[in-house]
Amino acid sequence: MSLVLIRKNAPTKAWLEALAVTCPDLKVHIWPETGPVEEVEFVLTWAADPGVIASFPNLKAILSLGAGVDHILNDPTVPLHLPVVRMIDPSLTRGMTQYLLMALLRLHRNLAEMEANQRQALWTRPEIIPRRVGVMGMGELGTGFATTAVSLGYDVAGWSRSRKDVEGVTSYAGEQDLAPFLARSDVLVCLLPRTTETEGVLNASLFERMPRGAHLINVARGEHLVEEDLLAALESGQLAGAVLDVFRKEPLPAEHPFWSHPRIFVTPHIASMTVPDTAAQIVADNIGRLRRGEPPLGLVDRDHGY
Amino acid sequence: MSLVLIRKNAPTKAWLEALAVTCPDLKVHIWPETGPVEEVEFVLTWAADPGVIASFPNLKAILSLGAGVDHILNDPTVPLHLPVVRMIDPSLTRGMTQYLLMALLRLHRNLAEMEANQRQALWTRPEIIPRRVGVMGMGELGTGFATTAVSLGYDVAGWSRSRKDVEGVTSYAGEQDLAPFLARSDVLVCLLPRTTETEGVLNASLFERMPRGAHLINVARGEHLVEEDLLAALESGQLAGAVLDVFRKEPLPAEHPFWSHPRIFVTPHIASMTVPDTAAQIVADNIGRLRRGEPPLGLVDRDHGY
Repeated sequence: MSLVLIRKNAPTKAWLEALAVTCPDLKVHIWPETGPVEEVEFVLTWAADPGVIASFPNLKAILSLGAGVDHILNDPTVPLHLPVVRMIDPSLTRGMTQYLLMALLRLHRNLAEMEANQRQALWTRPEIIPRRVGVMGMGELGTGFATTAVSLGYDVAGWSRSRKDVEGVTSYAGEQDLAPFLARSDVLVCLLPRTTETEGVLNASLFERMPRGAHLINVARGEHLVEEDLLAALESGQLAGAVLDVFRKEPLPAEHPFWSHPRIFVTPHIASMTVPDTAAQIVADNIGRLRRGEPPLGLVDRDHGY
Repeated sequence: MSLVLIRKNAPTKAWLEALAVTCPDLKVHIWPETGPVEEVEFVLTWAADPGVIASFPNLKAILSLGAGVDHILNDPTVPLHLPVVRMIDPSLTRGMTQYLLMALLRLHRNLAEMEANQRQALWTRPEIIPRRVGVMGMGELGTGFATTAVSLGYDVAGWSRSRKDVEGVTSYAGEQDLAPFLARSDVLVCLLPRTTETEGVLNASLFERMPRGAHLINVARGEHLVEEDLLAALESGQLAGAVLDVFRKEPLPAEHPFWSHPRIFVTPHIASMTVPDTAAQIVADNIGRLRRGEPPLGLVDRDHGY
């Protein structure tokens, strides 16, 4: 039995080495090589072309290389009976928390203002304004970041489908809590899964319910954001700035207006990357669970889409 | 009995309001007003002019407005029998941790490189290189930052006079441990107290023992740094960059070479500020302890100088 690793245009060597250690009895193929398709028991995948997953007749489960599984669920050829497993890896959560803290501290501690002051040899202490943080999407990554932000003294709230009990974090849940949650979010962090319900959620109507001069950080999916609405909200001053790591089209095309916008910081989808060294152990543990008939960690609920 | 607040060229209103809440039975004067000098029981001070503290004959203790007490101990007119108390305030530790994370993440997550790439509409993922962090000075602030850095996945060591047991942090102590500590510090954070022993500690001999291409962050005192040695180490490439929040002369003079150095980031001594809202309670608690004859929290050992 075998596993096929599907990771287009990206290095696979570290994954091969790590899986050789954690899954020594598993034959690993790198797509488009597959070995005999009927022997393929698992795929470990990121953004496989539609139809590729369905080409393995005896698949037991589909393992995502990242925290998101939209790339799997959006492929209509993927058989509905197959378990889909998202990556839950503490190192993925740490990477995301690092990125979000960088974005938050850069704003809150006035990094750009101090850099501009230095160019003029200006010894001026910028005003530090308390920023209330709102986290949309309180899964592994959202909870991890929110907890660290609380420990650093931030006033943090989380919004999610169902109420979450996270120490120090005010929980808002469901459609009826969205308005009060937005009204207190000076910095809104989007970490929602991409589902049919969440596409386009970062739109004019949402921005209008945030405090004037608020900031947006999107590290989830480009499809969450209505791009024209962001540009309009920045133009009107309703939003003061945005940090974007994900885009509808990646790489972000060179002519896209986000690149040259003075109040948008573009980063090339690097907020958090799965680290083979740690993630290969998570994969091995989940393969063990699946073979023993136990539910894997990170099993996706297809009705919720995450 | 009364307290005199000495805070030159800085706002005092928030302090007055906070002390009125936490020490309602205490008469508070703002220096240079003092009321009758013989009634002054406490000074709460930052950088009082030499002789000012000694002008109160019935003083019971000297409370520092910040974590450092060098401004008190360096005044030769301060009576040696008086207890000196440094500020230990969780909000001071949080502010310092925020600043240091900002400086560390800016480097580690390639903030400047991504900003430069954006100006060219360049979708390039910068390489994230693991950075081992070394914290010189493992007091309240150093321990607080080190603990958070560990939780974010950094490999952290601390160096201090005596060995410290902080979870996840490798402890180095004393002169004999300095070389191995420096050899593993890709990013060196100076949080040492300023004493006669630590002045000028950030010098050529220290930089030479760090890995080539290492970075320095100084948030302690300008006097720790031999400025010419830093410029030479940056010139030779032994150090790749520095973030400096403190200087021998503050404000840093406009003609100082640090301002225009491409690999030095200058910030105007804002790493962490005492917050009256929380610190006034610490002051009240310590005044209570002193009046009951108990040792205050943060009592300074004059032999150690901190």
